[in-house]
Parts: sequence; structure tokens; C-alpha cells
Amino acid sequence: MTASDDIATGPTTRRIPPGDDRERLVCDSCGFVNYENPKLVVGVVAAIDDRILLCRRAIEPRIGFWTLPAGYMELNETTEEGALREAWEEARARLSLDGLMAVYNIPRISQVQLIYRARLLDADVSSGPESAEVSLFRWDDIPWDTIAFPSVHWALHEFQARRGQPLGAPAGVPDGAAGGL
Amino acid sequence: MTASDDIATGPTTRRIPPGDDRERLVCDSCGFVNYENPKLVVGVVAAIDDRILLCRRAIEPRIGFWTLPAGYMELNETTEEGALREAWEEARARLSLDGLMAVYNIPRISQVQLIYRARLLDADVSSGPESAEVSLFRWDDIPWDTIAFPSVHWALHEFQARRGQPLGAPAGVPDGAAGGL
Repeated sequence: MTASDDIATGPTTRRIPPGDDRERLVCDSCGFVNYENPKLVVGVVAAIDDRILLCRRAIEPRIGFWTLPAGYMELNETTEEGALREAWEEARARLSLDGLMAVYNIPRISQVQLIYRARLLDADVSSGPESAEVSLFRWDDIPWDTIAFPSVHWALHEFQARRGQPLGAPAGVPDGAAGGL
Repeated sequence: MTASDDIATGPTTRRIPPGDDRERLVCDSCGFVNYENPKLVVGVVAAIDDRILLCRRAIEPRIGFWTLPAGYMELNETTEEGALREAWEEARARLSLDGLMAVYNIPRISQVQLIYRARLLDADVSSGPESAEVSLFRWDDIPWDTIAFPSVHWALHEFQARRGQPLGAPAGVPDGAAGGL
């Protein structure tokens, strides 16, 4: 934490940059454009035998309600790494990812959720700092009345509908390839 | 463009916010945390009959090289809307999306690409402002030596490998549903 970590910021104005077609936050001094984009959330429906992992939230929003391990991606990680990280952070869960199960667009809040299907490597799970409690639920025991978000409902029902079926997931980066758009 | 559009910014420091586990840019005055997340790129492999749409770039990076219609998502749009928007902006192309074909993680540059497969509604395409030229190529005529990015190669080969086959795409938001994580 040194002075060089500070960022000197000039006055900014919301205007349409040259060649663009919508307003952005632009620095009046240097012309830097602060593009804002939807955020990616990665999450998992993880199960062992016939039990599904859920976490009771220890933080707002929806504190006290049950959710899937999920959260915002970090820089320089893949979506798969992010999903595994969230499962560890929130439920100390170790997983084997099975594939991408769902893509949920929620444009109202500029969010795109990628939900993976996963197998818990063992039933040894426990609360991370953002969870008040973690538990493995059989389908009929899921606390449907205290689910945190609609997308948790969607993902659970999608999981149940395709239990044991192949996902036919989209392709990922080819083995050994590097570099991108 | 009024004074109220300006954002007053205080001094910022890169440090670990309370309850977090990695450094973020934090405002020393108000505690605002500037989370940075990977950016989503949406794109399409769009074809009509046996010809695939490519655009020759009029802008850096890789000016003069051929690419797929693709770009960063905008706020408050879905991934599908973003893919259709990019196809219109770059190639004045009208499409019917067929499904999500590939997810390419490129963590080195904190980018996640969602590539859709699409059918061109007609062959009437033309250059948008970011394209020097647009064209429909038969597979053997694709200008392989002047492709802009590795992920364009991946997507084209993925398209070719699964031509005419169902995608088995991941689920989207259920019909009529709203609200999210």
C-alpha cells in the first residue's frame, strides 16, 4: 500500500465517446472511457448421492435464506475455477464439475449467471464466512419457502429435471490452446 | 451533460476491504469498493446455406484481419440480445439464434466469451462502422491466414464439427420468470 497505488483521477463527464453510440463515463483530461458491462456470476448445483448442497446466507441481501454456492467471478480465473472457489469459500466443499447446466440472463440487474452441475467429492462440508449454515438436502426436504433468489429455484428444478442425463454442454477452450479475442 | 453527471472522487487506495480476502481499489473517504470482474464477450457464428459470415476489422487490435461478429456486452441486455446487436452493428446482419455453442475462458485477459450459433435470415449483409468489409465464406474459402484471434479459429472449427447437429445448449431463464440472484 504505497502512494503509487493511488489513482489520480481527473474530472469525468458522462458523454458519448467518439465512434460510440451511447453515453459512457469519460475522463475530461485524458479521454479514458470507463466502460460498464454486465457482471458474471458463477455457481454450482452440487450433489452427493441424492442430496444437494445449499448454504444459508450470513450476509445481505437475503440474509438467513438458502442459496447455492455462487458469486462474482474474480479477475484472471476461469468460470470453472470461479465455481470451485465459491463452493470452497461458502461451504468448504470439494467438487468435481460435470458441465455447464444453465445460463441465466437477468438484464434488469445486468447480471449473467453460469450455473454448473457438480458432484461433491465427499459429504464433509462446513460454513465459510458468508454462510450461517450449510446442509445437504434430499429433494423433498429442500426448504422451498426460504430460498434466497428465483434463480436458485430455476437451477434446482433444472438439476432435478436432468438428473442423471448428459448435459450436452457447450464447448470450452480446446486443450492446449491459449490466447483470445 | 450537466455538473450533476460529474462524479466526485476522493483519494483511493488498493487494500483488502473488511471481510474480503484480496486487494481492491477502495475510496479512503466513503469506503466504496471498486470490484473488478472479468468481461463478457458475446459473438456468433452465423451461416446461410454453407456460407459463414466474417468481418474484416476496421479497428485495432488486429485491424485488417477477419473476425466473427462479437463484442462486449452492454448493461441491461441479455447475452442473446448482445449477440444479435453485435451482428447488426458489425455486419448489418439479421439472425435467428440457434443456441449457445461455446464458452471460451481466457483468464490471461479476464475475458469470458459466449459464442452462439445462428442462421442468417438473408444474405444481405454490409459493413458497420467497425468493419472494413464483410463477407460470406464457404469453408474452403475462409481466409485462414488472416484470422484475427485464436478464438475465431476455435469457434469456426467447433461450428464445422457440429454442423447440422443439435447443440444441447444449457438452459436459459424459464419462460415468464423474472428476478435473480
